[in-house]
Amino acid sequence: MFILPRIQEFIIAGVMVESPCVIGVDLGGTNVRLGLVHAGRIMARAEQAVRVERSPAAMVDFLARVITPWRSTTPAPQAIGIGAPGIVDPQRGVILKSPHYPEWVGFDMQAQLDAATGLPVILENDANAIALGEATDGAGQGFANFIMLTLGTGIGGGLILNRDLFRGDVGFAAEVGHMVLDYAGPACPCGGHGCWELYASASAFPQLIDQSDHPLRRQFLDHFHGESGRVTPADVYRLATDGDLFANALWKTFGRFLGTGIASLTNVFGVDHFVIGGGMATAWDFFVPEAHRALARHTYPETAARIQLHRARLGDDAGILGAAALVARRLQ
Amino acid sequence: MFILPRIQEFIIAGVMVESPCVIGVDLGGTNVRLGLVHAGRIMARAEQAVRVERSPAAMVDFLARVITPWRSTTPAPQAIGIGAPGIVDPQRGVILKSPHYPEWVGFDMQAQLDAATGLPVILENDANAIALGEATDGAGQGFANFIMLTLGTGIGGGLILNRDLFRGDVGFAAEVGHMVLDYAGPACPCGGHGCWELYASASAFPQLIDQSDHPLRRQFLDHFHGESGRVTPADVYRLATDGDLFANALWKTFGRFLGTGIASLTNVFGVDHFVIGGGMATAWDFFVPEAHRALARHTYPETAARIQLHRARLGDDAGILGAAALVARRLQ
Repeated sequence: MFILPRIQEFIIAGVMVESPCVIGVDLGGTNVRLGLVHAGRIMARAEQAVRVERSPAAMVDFLARVITPWRSTTPAPQAIGIGAPGIVDPQRGVILKSPHYPEWVGFDMQAQLDAATGLPVILENDANAIALGEATDGAGQGFANFIMLTLGTGIGGGLILNRDLFRGDVGFAAEVGHMVLDYAGPACPCGGHGCWELYASASAFPQLIDQSDHPLRRQFLDHFHGESGRVTPADVYRLATDGDLFANALWKTFGRFLGTGIASLTNVFGVDHFVIGGGMATAWDFFVPEAHRALARHTYPETAARIQLHRARLGDDAGILGAAALVARRLQ
Repeated sequence: MFILPRIQEFIIAGVMVESPCVIGVDLGGTNVRLGLVHAGRIMARAEQAVRVERSPAAMVDFLARVITPWRSTTPAPQAIGIGAPGIVDPQRGVILKSPHYPEWVGFDMQAQLDAATGLPVILENDANAIALGEATDGAGQGFANFIMLTLGTGIGGGLILNRDLFRGDVGFAAEVGHMVLDYAGPACPCGGHGCWELYASASAFPQLIDQSDHPLRRQFLDHFHGESGRVTPADVYRLATDGDLFANALWKTFGRFLGTGIASLTNVFGVDHFVIGGGMATAWDFFVPEAHRALARHTYPETAARIQLHRARLGDDAGILGAAALVARRLQ
C-alpha cells in the first residue's frame, strides 16, 4: 500500500484526533465536488462542472488549487479520500477506466494528487465510498451488514459486510445492477442480458413506458411529443405528484422490479437491511410499497417480514461524505 | 456463545495441538454419517439410515452411542461439529426447522449432545459446513473468497468471504437457489417465483424435459414410460454417457441456467472462484462448457474471463469433513 506509511506517521507522531479532519472528493459525471469534512460535517466546500477538467492533469490541478488553501485551516486536513466512477484499483490508487472520462485509462490519481498537495490520498469506487458514508454518518449506522443501492442511470451498489466494505477479488464487487432478472431478457450495454438495471433505474423508464398496456399511456406520452425516450424520472415524479395515474403506475412497476432484485439479494446474502439512495429515492413513497409486495412474492414469508428498506440520509453530499468516511476510517 | 468457554479451557490448559482431532457429523436426509477426523482425514466412520432416527432423542442417542467409544482413541476428539439441513441458529446451537425432519422444531441439539457426550458441540447449516470443508481441505484452499454451490434437489450455497463463512444477519445467507432467474417465472415451493433452482438442480429436469422442443425428446421419454417425472439426473447422466443426444442437450440446457445464475452472483460479489459439488457434479464435462458460455452472455467480457469453476474435491465425505473443519477452525 502506497499510503499506509504516511498514515502510520500521523499515528506515531500523535497528530491523530478522535475524529480527524479530512477532504472528501466526489468525482461525478457532471460536477466535481469536494469538501473539508470534520466529524461527519462539511466545513467548507467547492464545486466545478467537469467539462473543462476532463484530462487527468487538469483535474489534479483543479483539486490542488482548492485543497492547498484548506491545508491551513484548523484542524488541518490529514488526508484526501476520493470516490471515482468506474473501475478503480484501490490498492494502487489508480483509475483503470471510467465511463465519464474516456481519457482516464490507468490514471494514477493517488500518486499525482499526493505529489501536488503533500497529503496522503485514498481512492475508491464512488458507489463503495457512498456505502461507507451511509455506514459511518447516514442510514446504515449501527448495521453490521447492509447493501447500499444508488438508483441513478444504473443501479450502483455497495456491500457493507461485517461492518466493512466488501470489495470482492478485484475491487469490482457490487455491480448489482447487472444481476440477471430475466435470463431471456434484452441486451444490456454491459454485454449481458436481462440485467436488473434495465428494469429499475433511470434508463429503464422508456422501456417501462413502451411495454405498458395501460389505457392512459398515450395521454401521458402527449406531454413528451409521443416520445418515451424524452421522459426522465424527474418528469415521472412530477406527474405522479400531480396525480397522473399512468405516472403513478410507472412508479409501481419500477418498485416491483426494484423489489424483485432486492429479494434476490436477500436470498443470496441473508442481509436484512438495504439503504437506498440516488436521485430516484425522491419518489420513495410512490415505489416502496410495491417493492415490499415484490419482496413478499420472491422470498420466504419469514424473510420478507425481516427486510427493511431505509432511505439514504446523506443526499447530494453522499459522495463527499463517503469519500471522507473512507479516509477517516483509516485514520482512526 | 454456549461453547466458547469450553474451547477456551482447552487452549488455556495447553491441550491444543496444531491440528485437533474432532468429530464431524453429516445429518443428511437419507443417512446420518459421522467421522473421527484428524488433519483433514477420516480415521473412523459410522453411518446409519435415518428412517428410525427421526426424533431428536433417538438422534442424540444414536450419535452418543457412536461417539462415546471414540473418546478413548489417541489423539482423543476435542469437540463435535454438526452440519444440519434446514434453518439453524449457530449462536444457540438450535435447529429451528429442517425439511427432512418435521419433528425437529427448535431442537436444541448442541445442548443435548453436549450433555450426552461431554464434548463441546458446534452446529451449522450443512451447506455452510460443506463450504468450510472445501475451504479447509478441498477445492477452495487458498482462495480468500469463493462461493460454494451444491447441486442437489435444490442449489445449496455457502459464502466464503475474506477467508471466513459469511452468515448474513440470521445465519440464513446463501439461499442462492432462490435468487430470481426469471421475474415472471413459475412458482417455487419456497413461496417465490422464477427461482434459480427451478432451472438448475435435480428437481429441474422434469421441467427442462417438458419445455424442450428437441426432436429426440419423445424417443428419450420412451425409456421412462413417457413420464418426465420419473427421470433422475443419474438417468440423464447415464444416457448422455451412452451417447443419447437428447440427454446431452439436457445437460447443456442445465449448464446454461447454471452459468446464468453464476453470472449474477459474479456481478454481485465480484468473486472469481466457484466450487461446485453435489451429486450432479458427476456430469461436469456435459454441463460446464455451456455454463461458461452463459457466463460470457451475462457478464462483462473481462469478468467472464476471470471466472473459474472448480469441481468440489471432498465428494461424499464433504458433509463429515465440513462439519469437522467447522469445529477444528475454532480450536486452532
